[in-house]
Amino acid sequence: MTLESPHPATQTPSPTPKAPARPAPGNRVYNFTAGPATFPLEVMEQVREDLHDYGGLGAGIAEISHRSQEFKDIIEEGEALLHELMDIPDDYRVLFCHGGGQLQFSMVPLNLIGLKPARKALYVDSGSFASRAADIATRYGYVHVPAHSRETDYDRVPKLDAEILHQDASYLHITSNNTAMGTCWRDIPHTGPLPLVADMTSEILSRVVDVRRFGLIYAGAQKNLGPSGLAMVILRKELLGHSLPGTPQLLDYTSLASDRHSMGNTPSTLSIYMMLLILRWVKEKGGVSAMEKTNAEKAALLYRVIDGSGFYRGFALPGHRSPMNVTFDLPDAALCARFVAEALEAGLYGLAGHRARGGVRASIYNAMPMGGPALLAEFMTAFERANG
Amino acid sequence: MTLESPHPATQTPSPTPKAPARPAPGNRVYNFTAGPATFPLEVMEQVREDLHDYGGLGAGIAEISHRSQEFKDIIEEGEALLHELMDIPDDYRVLFCHGGGQLQFSMVPLNLIGLKPARKALYVDSGSFASRAADIATRYGYVHVPAHSRETDYDRVPKLDAEILHQDASYLHITSNNTAMGTCWRDIPHTGPLPLVADMTSEILSRVVDVRRFGLIYAGAQKNLGPSGLAMVILRKELLGHSLPGTPQLLDYTSLASDRHSMGNTPSTLSIYMMLLILRWVKEKGGVSAMEKTNAEKAALLYRVIDGSGFYRGFALPGHRSPMNVTFDLPDAALCARFVAEALEAGLYGLAGHRARGGVRASIYNAMPMGGPALLAEFMTAFERANG
Repeated sequence: MTLESPHPATQTPSPTPKAPARPAPGNRVYNFTAGPATFPLEVMEQVREDLHDYGGLGAGIAEISHRSQEFKDIIEEGEALLHELMDIPDDYRVLFCHGGGQLQFSMVPLNLIGLKPARKALYVDSGSFASRAADIATRYGYVHVPAHSRETDYDRVPKLDAEILHQDASYLHITSNNTAMGTCWRDIPHTGPLPLVADMTSEILSRVVDVRRFGLIYAGAQKNLGPSGLAMVILRKELLGHSLPGTPQLLDYTSLASDRHSMGNTPSTLSIYMMLLILRWVKEKGGVSAMEKTNAEKAALLYRVIDGSGFYRGFALPGHRSPMNVTFDLPDAALCARFVAEALEAGLYGLAGHRARGGVRASIYNAMPMGGPALLAEFMTAFERANG
Repeated sequence: MTLESPHPATQTPSPTPKAPARPAPGNRVYNFTAGPATFPLEVMEQVREDLHDYGGLGAGIAEISHRSQEFKDIIEEGEALLHELMDIPDDYRVLFCHGGGQLQFSMVPLNLIGLKPARKALYVDSGSFASRAADIATRYGYVHVPAHSRETDYDRVPKLDAEILHQDASYLHITSNNTAMGTCWRDIPHTGPLPLVADMTSEILSRVVDVRRFGLIYAGAQKNLGPSGLAMVILRKELLGHSLPGTPQLLDYTSLASDRHSMGNTPSTLSIYMMLLILRWVKEKGGVSAMEKTNAEKAALLYRVIDGSGFYRGFALPGHRSPMNVTFDLPDAALCARFVAEALEAGLYGLAGHRARGGVRASIYNAMPMGGPALLAEFMTAFERANG
């Protein structure tokens, strides 16, 4: 029995958006960096206002106490908006943590691998970050990799069969979107009673997911949520209370959850505020389902050029393509370097691929306006004509 | 033999600064919050510029990759400036860490308590944070508290005698400035071969210290260095390599130091940039010794009012007073609440004491201009006249 069946994110025909292929507004480039990544311009403008004077206090948002009523209002609204936007049930808890997504590579096993006496966890290896998460978990218990796509250089997410879901495992970990590779799990695997843990760093809030299917979701902020250094965790409350002895206090979900507002210590107040502004922006734009629709359209603009070209080679297998990170190669490394350099001159910034893969990567998170991929698609076509 | 002899920070006569006692410029209040705390106005103005467009890239400082040349330049300049401003010798390493000062409460024992086989550490208990640091360390070894000032409600830093410096201890931990209490170690204890570890969160860069006297110095950023969530660590390289098994990767100094620029994962790029701007500002203002001189003058303005009054009672013992956090009480709680409220109306923000102590606390870090304590001193005198 196959538990997941990745299907094309971008093969459903979508109308060509009437996006103007012109430079980004406000003397800005279109920023395709993988993270830290582009912010919605209006969010950044608001941050700039509030850095000088937040809400008429006469002090900036980075300068007020985390114990102030103003900041409590911020963190409460942030939690409430996440619950609303992601339809998070009441038996789940939202936590804001230090350290970005990668500190979760340690926090997840420290807190969850002890859920069952075997101290065993299953890690699907679908790319460089998935693999690092598994490596780090080996410090805390027995790690089994039930499926991987290493043999095809991670051009897909692996198949996952029911047989591999060991009954004595504490959880199964997946990386739902592989930033470096440009692949994603279109269908989230069903794991039954085995808690599913997902690193959603590079796709959080970009698509509708049923939170009930997960034991724990985590995401570093620097793609779709805010500045780097912050992480957001959503976890089923019944998973609390199983941290290993010696778990550092600020890495212990149970300890963090004992404070109503994730204030085990002084939180990253400025980053959390920037995240709140992004959550408000997502809501204003129609919520996560609206994001998902626009993201599919943005990605389709690029995948269409790739599929219609004998020049560009898409890296991810079509059925496994990420709408967030579009990865492709050019005939040779010299052309690839020229592509990135000329794109930059055209106002298309940050297109070099991840060091683990090379090639080109266009990260088109929620905040990337349609004009970005539209201009990039046009540039790709022109570059192919000139060099193909 | 007494190893330290706290002497008055503010009893040396200093000329009354000719500070104008008028409201803060730019529609801002004077912000006395303990942290997150006030920034130099010019630093904040620069951040606001750079959030829109950093160095003409067309992308903001929070939106560029930590792997970009621009960010590498930032982190290199930050490290170099710290070395220069604090005269950090070459056999020390500067690290930037996630999690603020309190994650160091776990990181210090995880990395250093194994320096000697006894796994023993000495923690001086001089206040609420010092006490929490000791509590957390007990998870990782044997913690001995050789001196404390609990019996006098932490109104002083304790005496430390040579006899208590156990030869089998891995290190001695002090909190060099006690934010909640308003006390500080004017003279840093000599510990001989025993590595001295200091939490300098609330006084880093505010006074000249001889780094060679310390095995490790750490500081959360949110007082004198930048926004909350970031920490800076200075450690003697020879102390690396002794982390306990199971130390989370991002909490392991040795692992962090293996990357040239503290990039065990994506660092808090915006926060590190804001720190760099503050370091540049400190240098421009004459460096740490100039800060120290101005800070003494600022503190003297307030301690002078306290000492000349039968109304205000300074909390810290005169020889132990902090130039960073000035703590005092009023005759009763109702007057205290009125003081804080009326001060706010006069443009003096954030004067309520820490929950662990109550009363009034004026935090006057490096970024607080002379006008702040000048106006507060004037307000205190007027308030006493009206209510005393």
